[in-house]
Amino acid sequence: MFKVVIIGGMAAGCKAAARLSRISSGYQIDVIERKPFISFANCGLPIYASGEIDNIFDLAKTAYGSIRDADYFLNVKGVKIHTETEAEIINTEEKTVVCCSVRNGEKFSLPYDALVIATGSIPNKPLFPVAESKRISTFYSPIDAINFREEVQKGSINKVVIIGGGFIGCELTESMNTLWGIDTTIIEKEDSLLPKILDREFSKLVENRLGKNSVKIHLSADVIKIDLNTAALPVVYLSDGSKIECDYVFYNVGIKPNTRLAKQIGVECGNFGGIIVDDQMKTNIENIWAAGDCVEIKNLITNKSDFFTLGSLSNRMGRTAADSISGNYSKFGGAVGTISLKVFDLIISVSGLTETKAAEMGYNTGSVIGCWSDRPDFHPDAKNLFGKIVYEKNSLKLLGLQMLGEGEVNRYADVFSELSASHRTAFDLINLEHGYTPAHSSPLSPLNYFGYMIINQEKDKVKNYNPLNLSSFKGTLIDIREEFENASTPFNLNSEKIPLSKFRAKIGEINNQTPVVVVCEKGARSYEATKILMNYGHSNASYLGGGAFLYNELNN
Amino acid sequence: MFKVVIIGGMAAGCKAAARLSRISSGYQIDVIERKPFISFANCGLPIYASGEIDNIFDLAKTAYGSIRDADYFLNVKGVKIHTETEAEIINTEEKTVVCCSVRNGEKFSLPYDALVIATGSIPNKPLFPVAESKRISTFYSPIDAINFREEVQKGSINKVVIIGGGFIGCELTESMNTLWGIDTTIIEKEDSLLPKILDREFSKLVENRLGKNSVKIHLSADVIKIDLNTAALPVVYLSDGSKIECDYVFYNVGIKPNTRLAKQIGVECGNFGGIIVDDQMKTNIENIWAAGDCVEIKNLITNKSDFFTLGSLSNRMGRTAADSISGNYSKFGGAVGTISLKVFDLIISVSGLTETKAAEMGYNTGSVIGCWSDRPDFHPDAKNLFGKIVYEKNSLKLLGLQMLGEGEVNRYADVFSELSASHRTAFDLINLEHGYTPAHSSPLSPLNYFGYMIINQEKDKVKNYNPLNLSSFKGTLIDIREEFENASTPFNLNSEKIPLSKFRAKIGEINNQTPVVVVCEKGARSYEATKILMNYGHSNASYLGGGAFLYNELNN
Repeated sequence: MFKVVIIGGMAAGCKAAARLSRISSGYQIDVIERKPFISFANCGLPIYASGEIDNIFDLAKTAYGSIRDADYFLNVKGVKIHTETEAEIINTEEKTVVCCSVRNGEKFSLPYDALVIATGSIPNKPLFPVAESKRISTFYSPIDAINFREEVQKGSINKVVIIGGGFIGCELTESMNTLWGIDTTIIEKEDSLLPKILDREFSKLVENRLGKNSVKIHLSADVIKIDLNTAALPVVYLSDGSKIECDYVFYNVGIKPNTRLAKQIGVECGNFGGIIVDDQMKTNIENIWAAGDCVEIKNLITNKSDFFTLGSLSNRMGRTAADSISGNYSKFGGAVGTISLKVFDLIISVSGLTETKAAEMGYNTGSVIGCWSDRPDFHPDAKNLFGKIVYEKNSLKLLGLQMLGEGEVNRYADVFSELSASHRTAFDLINLEHGYTPAHSSPLSPLNYFGYMIINQEKDKVKNYNPLNLSSFKGTLIDIREEFENASTPFNLNSEKIPLSKFRAKIGEINNQTPVVVVCEKGARSYEATKILMNYGHSNASYLGGGAFLYNELNN
Repeated sequence: MFKVVIIGGMAAGCKAAARLSRISSGYQIDVIERKPFISFANCGLPIYASGEIDNIFDLAKTAYGSIRDADYFLNVKGVKIHTETEAEIINTEEKTVVCCSVRNGEKFSLPYDALVIATGSIPNKPLFPVAESKRISTFYSPIDAINFREEVQKGSINKVVIIGGGFIGCELTESMNTLWGIDTTIIEKEDSLLPKILDREFSKLVENRLGKNSVKIHLSADVIKIDLNTAALPVVYLSDGSKIECDYVFYNVGIKPNTRLAKQIGVECGNFGGIIVDDQMKTNIENIWAAGDCVEIKNLITNKSDFFTLGSLSNRMGRTAADSISGNYSKFGGAVGTISLKVFDLIISVSGLTETKAAEMGYNTGSVIGCWSDRPDFHPDAKNLFGKIVYEKNSLKLLGLQMLGEGEVNRYADVFSELSASHRTAFDLINLEHGYTPAHSSPLSPLNYFGYMIINQEKDKVKNYNPLNLSSFKGTLIDIREEFENASTPFNLNSEKIPLSKFRAKIGEINNQTPVVVVCEKGARSYEATKILMNYGHSNASYLGGGAFLYNELNN
């Protein structure tokens, strides 16, 4: 039998094992996993923590209710899984992996013909001291979530501090708040939440939403230590001298590829610390593949190495490794990075680069910001969608998308992923078709509008104005909404009121020299008015991206 | 001033007018519309009919609550709209349009430098006689919907017959049934509902859903006349001698391009009766453009002329016509035809060709059918999604998608539209990224799985079995689900029960020569078992597409 050993029993490792077992019955497959769990949906942990799911094992369930445990893999797939087993040493000469049982320290050695390293990621160690306590932990593994649920069900957790305002931190706020009614504080080192996936205007929107849900937020806040008070409860100390007492602390200060074992045997790693692989998931060492969060992959937009930790990509990498081992051709070419999360009612769905990141990488970036109804305005369930698209000036190549809203938000990132991976431009947005039915979308999609807005901005010079810059704007704000609209959507900045219905008649009264930003509810009419102004010779007019709706989301 | 006359004030015409008015103030724009309404969201009419929207004018509302009427267009856009005005004759020598007021018969003539024909579509005349009555009408224009609402609000409509089981007919059943509690019967000439957009297995699914919602369905039913009984109420007579008495009849027997005026002046039309235009929306006659439902467009999958009537495409065509008139370059290259509708809780979203249509057109087609949870199975809101993908054998080029479910169904057609328009293959499905968060989707999307399934079928010869063919299957059905699953999802066909957990152990007991179809809940495990069978030398094994779930949707 051809022997395959896989180190790591989460998404990538288990997928590789399952795929290999299906391809042929000629493989002897061993999977080594340090934890007691395998094939676990880590992304479901916040849902377990929230209490929405009762049994942690539901996160390892198959579609039909069986638990994906070692027995399941043995019976169904003929794969042997060694849980609570550490892979200690890889011997590339002998082609063996020395393993050690976490339970009893027993050692054994597994020979391999092919080895897959799928060791995943590990949480970064905080740079500040952290006291030992059941009440202070990362939120990373099922054990963290189980531990929290045990404590919270005792009824003794009233106040939680979450250190780290990334993906997990933000998702946890809802779990804490909605179901358990816990007073929740989030602490972030950077000056915004979700800094890696959102530009400042939209991280501000998220912060406002969290605030409205009674989550306290400390930005640009430096934790210097997490200690315990005399009652053995956690206290978070900040560099500004303040401290926060609470009943539980989660700290999530980032993750990194887990490559200790790989590095020992000279597997090549990249700038992000992840294993470098080819498009077959082969490492630089013969007979050794790698897949999942422990590898770096190509960012298809920048064509540079990048580090994404996404279950969907891990699955695909595991599959590709199995195909490569068995001589079936498949290819994992990279990813643009499409990420989605839910924070209270808000779905945040992003793809590609933020404008900040794109600018840092040297792109000559442009962007437009918009607001739309997610359905025709006549539909009783219509809700606002907010979005931003980032592109490269001149080429109009698509670089990044950020969409936020309460309904079907992900569909836009689905399409954008494919477009940006294929190096498409704003012109391709205009021609997109989409599934239109009034219960679910409008005749033209936000992606169509983004295409128009970019081309209007770059070819026609009708500028989209970023609401973040309004505070420093020196010129005239013109609110072209009808008077009755102020009742439902007040716009409190000082502005001239010229309703669009009277705009053409009053255009002579507008000073052609003063810079103008035109405001409406969402940005469609103000675009129209700006175009009219420009047709009448105004040289410095622009329209407020996302209109009064977005402005209010950011400022009220 | 450069004079533009636009005949037709719905989506395409109004979009062309609005776009031109924005491009420059140098245009004098007149729009001629026969009806009293303009710029109307016709797709919202079933929602109005259902009572979910109170005011019919909401369907002509802008995002900010103004009604898009003639005053609005004049004040905001400087566009003159002539409602209730018929364009009678186009004089291409003089470059004028002779108009006639529907209200008072007054005639006037409008000169043009550029003319846009945006006359839309008209309902086909039924081939059977139809009595004159307020209780018998098409469901096509706002007037039809208003008329129905007036009658239903009198409380005298208890039974409705809908003739025509297409898009509008199916959407109307929900409007009738859910809000008004009306006994509803749908009559279709063909042997399935929605025959143009769904293959037989999924039209059957829709029929079953309608039946569960107490809608009566007559397929392959030929109406010979609609008459009135002595109480002046409608009676529908069928060719089999039966008749259905009711309080109201809608008949929707298709629509066709409205090209009477265009044909008078020699505008070239195609096989579907629509105006032929280039990618700038220019007709064969100088200074005349056409846009919207009155034109034929290129089907981007087949590269042949086709007839789609979709508001989203009309909008884009109107815009392109305006760009072309003004010398701004834009292009409308065609469409693949992406259509979405909602029938009770079921969202149906399709793109491209059905298998039936593709086969008729001479494609060597293959297809796979599947069922998935729309979210990870652990998520409390997870619902089933059903789908089929049609491709060309050998090239594996994507030809069509049909998705049905209760949640976010449209996102798959959004992506498929773009892929099929770009002539992409099953291999491109595998690499798609999508916005994954447990509240909204699974780590791998149905589109990823479709890619795997197609490649498995064509390269690995693991066949996906169409549930429609089960009734004539001669061989062994093997149900590989665990016993406990029968409680929630019974599978009532005669089958051998070999749970997947014991499958490898019992494989020797399965006759290698008898054809086998393997069944599980959704199709994932049965694929796995089929692959195992084949690895053990079985030569005629396949797995049931969509599993027991889809089978039950079609048969229970």
